[in-house]
Amino acid sequence: MKLALEKGFYFPSCEIYADAPAGFWEYGPTGLKVKNKLIDLWRREIVRRDGMLEIDGSQIMSRSVFEASGHIENFTDPVIKCTECGSTFRADRLISERIGKDIPERTPNDEIDAIINSEGIRCPSCKGKFGITTRFNMMFRVEIGPSAEEAYLRPETCQTIFVDFPRVYKTMRGKLPLGIAQLGKSFRNEIAPRQSLLRLREFYQAEVEIFCNPSKLDSLPFFDELSNTTLRISTDGLSVEEVTTNEGLKGGLLPNKLVAYYLSILADFYSKTGIDMKRTRFRKLGENERAFYASIAFDFEVETSVGWLELVACNYRSDYDLRGHSTVSKQNLEVIDPSDQSKILPHVFELSMGIDRSIYAILEHSFYEDSEHDDRVVLRLKPYLAPVLVGILPLVNRNGLSEKSQIIHSELKREFDTYYDDSGSIGRRYRRLEQIGVPFAITVDKITLQDDSVTVRQRDTMQQERIKVSGLKEYLRRSLQSS
Amino acid sequence: MKLALEKGFYFPSCEIYADAPAGFWEYGPTGLKVKNKLIDLWRREIVRRDGMLEIDGSQIMSRSVFEASGHIENFTDPVIKCTECGSTFRADRLISERIGKDIPERTPNDEIDAIINSEGIRCPSCKGKFGITTRFNMMFRVEIGPSAEEAYLRPETCQTIFVDFPRVYKTMRGKLPLGIAQLGKSFRNEIAPRQSLLRLREFYQAEVEIFCNPSKLDSLPFFDELSNTTLRISTDGLSVEEVTTNEGLKGGLLPNKLVAYYLSILADFYSKTGIDMKRTRFRKLGENERAFYASIAFDFEVETSVGWLELVACNYRSDYDLRGHSTVSKQNLEVIDPSDQSKILPHVFELSMGIDRSIYAILEHSFYEDSEHDDRVVLRLKPYLAPVLVGILPLVNRNGLSEKSQIIHSELKREFDTYYDDSGSIGRRYRRLEQIGVPFAITVDKITLQDDSVTVRQRDTMQQERIKVSGLKEYLRRSLQSS
Repeated sequence: MKLALEKGFYFPSCEIYADAPAGFWEYGPTGLKVKNKLIDLWRREIVRRDGMLEIDGSQIMSRSVFEASGHIENFTDPVIKCTECGSTFRADRLISERIGKDIPERTPNDEIDAIINSEGIRCPSCKGKFGITTRFNMMFRVEIGPSAEEAYLRPETCQTIFVDFPRVYKTMRGKLPLGIAQLGKSFRNEIAPRQSLLRLREFYQAEVEIFCNPSKLDSLPFFDELSNTTLRISTDGLSVEEVTTNEGLKGGLLPNKLVAYYLSILADFYSKTGIDMKRTRFRKLGENERAFYASIAFDFEVETSVGWLELVACNYRSDYDLRGHSTVSKQNLEVIDPSDQSKILPHVFELSMGIDRSIYAILEHSFYEDSEHDDRVVLRLKPYLAPVLVGILPLVNRNGLSEKSQIIHSELKREFDTYYDDSGSIGRRYRRLEQIGVPFAITVDKITLQDDSVTVRQRDTMQQERIKVSGLKEYLRRSLQSS
Repeated sequence: MKLALEKGFYFPSCEIYADAPAGFWEYGPTGLKVKNKLIDLWRREIVRRDGMLEIDGSQIMSRSVFEASGHIENFTDPVIKCTECGSTFRADRLISERIGKDIPERTPNDEIDAIINSEGIRCPSCKGKFGITTRFNMMFRVEIGPSAEEAYLRPETCQTIFVDFPRVYKTMRGKLPLGIAQLGKSFRNEIAPRQSLLRLREFYQAEVEIFCNPSKLDSLPFFDELSNTTLRISTDGLSVEEVTTNEGLKGGLLPNKLVAYYLSILADFYSKTGIDMKRTRFRKLGENERAFYASIAFDFEVETSVGWLELVACNYRSDYDLRGHSTVSKQNLEVIDPSDQSKILPHVFELSMGIDRSIYAILEHSFYEDSEHDDRVVLRLKPYLAPVLVGILPLVNRNGLSEKSQIIHSELKREFDTYYDDSGSIGRRYRRLEQIGVPFAITVDKITLQDDSVTVRQRDTMQQERIKVSGLKEYLRRSLQSS
């Protein structure tokens, strides 16, 4: 957190103001570059690899959309308010903390009231009595135009994909299975946001919805490409079985080839982010843990200092969404599957990725205190995820070294993320670069002026090699290949 | 518009629903790629080129922010409501249409009422009488948490930059002049949104705020790099003078080197988008056209089928913003200028770019009906802005050509945006690619199986050349260089 705040990774929104609302964070210059590069990797290794179509829709959507999706009715948390001091709490969380046992957020209001009474739970702030439990809808409502039409900020990006599906399928000459992807913001009016990027009221999702023919979940054209991927699956949330995709299918851990293929593409993607895959798992959710629309669900989780963190929800949503939108809009959303000319309402399997949490996990898994070298702090980020690829450092600020360094910097800065630093000792400058994960540092010295070569120092090994200035671009380009 | 709707460029949001609100549009798969590539070009040619810092902040901001910015008080349009049918109109627009003369939106309510009475203006829907003029604030209000704290969706991205300036300047070791950039969404509750991407209620801005020392507007380190850029400047909105940056400065068309430099960087950027620069101008705004905070203002405008379209507002905002935020937050936002150790409240010059409008203008300027070749419709997009860089087409679907084409496609698809098409005649497939601006089409034919070469057809010239499969990546990479 110290590094995040002091090095421009992320920090609270509106922080100069006393009325800054909780649950809103900004990406600073360093964090934004990591975010943009993670999104590039997602596009490369998931969207383009699988031939998905990506769209970008409005965040404000009409009331009907959320009637159809069920959010108007169901997207609520139970809240209780102190009758004396007026403090408001999320009822399920407060009770869980008090009685030391999780109670589901869907517990009916009267059951919650009964527990509060029987356990004698009172306001943590003033010991006052609570009023009865009510429901708080977590969508942000907005009013459009002078007539104040009711609309909402979307609580998940996927609703855009479902509503846009008919046009995208038709105009882009779609064939099932078809993945439609979207990167964008979603909004949830959390009662108790917490832990910087982990529970935000405004957050980034990268969602993929795979529209498929439910009778063909075992015929996937590219399945073999990924059949030997390593997957770590937990069915009980405790132990993990490490299997290949093929083994998982044969042993019954995975329900069909479609689910197996997309979990594999996801595992392959995360293995390239630098997250330690030995500290990850696909946790299969039991019936009472799954969202109401999901008949099969896996959470991709990563072990961090705050426990197991869900980064991606993988849900088989069947035809819940298209059926709902079809009913409310009175439009027929069926399509023809060209492979057999049958008319079907596609089912959907989704990979719903939290970008902010993924960044948090990547940063934490990359963080390294090097006890063998003065406890230097190093972020061991992959070059293609590092906020800055290369630092350019004149060894001293005289004898023409600054001028030469500036020329090298100018040649590199449009193609690569660079950082020019000429202040302080060379050791201090290396430390500054290592702290934000810069993989390479170029030092310009006296020899540079003689033979046009520089030293390139590698962050992790601290090894240096001499390279001709003319070969720098190619050297740096090669480092950016992700596979 | 037909192409936009049918080829996945953009289309209305929530279109399957009767209550879809106006002024919200989606980018389809084709349009989104153009948008993402335009943003990449902006990052390369403006942000990285000038060494700016880019941030990404929350869209929901606290009430105090907009008290300080003046939006709570001033960001309003005059509205009138029919006393009979209840229809609501923007008063200034309705009057302007009726009396054939523009009246400023800041005209006081009682003056508007007087014009309505004296001109006898009645409701266009039902001929009813209007009530008195009121003010409609164009910000979307949201309520945060169970206590319903007042907050707003930002109406311009730059407020984030002003509020975050103190932390960014300090943690990123800033030096004046310092550009801080942001790409993101803004929201304006327009009374009458119109013309697809041109007046949206939810839209993308790419804003740059250059924080500077007002006593040093004529010492710019990189000024000479751009001093010979061609600028087209109009001081009267009718005639245009074409000058170099240097000439513009000497002749007094441009007020100082800082403004001259950043207008040049902007002109250089747009010249790379494929917009016809002969149909653009920097229009210098007169005193009563400028925003209230701007002492110098140029609009970068492009001529289109709907008239001159403002793509970028370039405003010298002086210390209006930082002073306002400093007053309301009671924080001292002054910084030390390291060049002379003076303590100053920086001034700001901004380049406020509309991304959606820029895309509209680029598409329109690229659109070409080729009367010499069957009126083929071609989007002559630059390769680095094209939604798809290369189509891969087996000449026929037999003799192993499909399999070979699939292999070539697989090798290219992670690095480049590709499109595989094997349906219909080769001529029809070329047409489909040209319509969305694909610069290259690879055809796989019998000779490919013999010597591993393909034909590469260029969209604009329709020339074909034979290239080895092993050289395709390098060929495509070269085409993506923007300068």
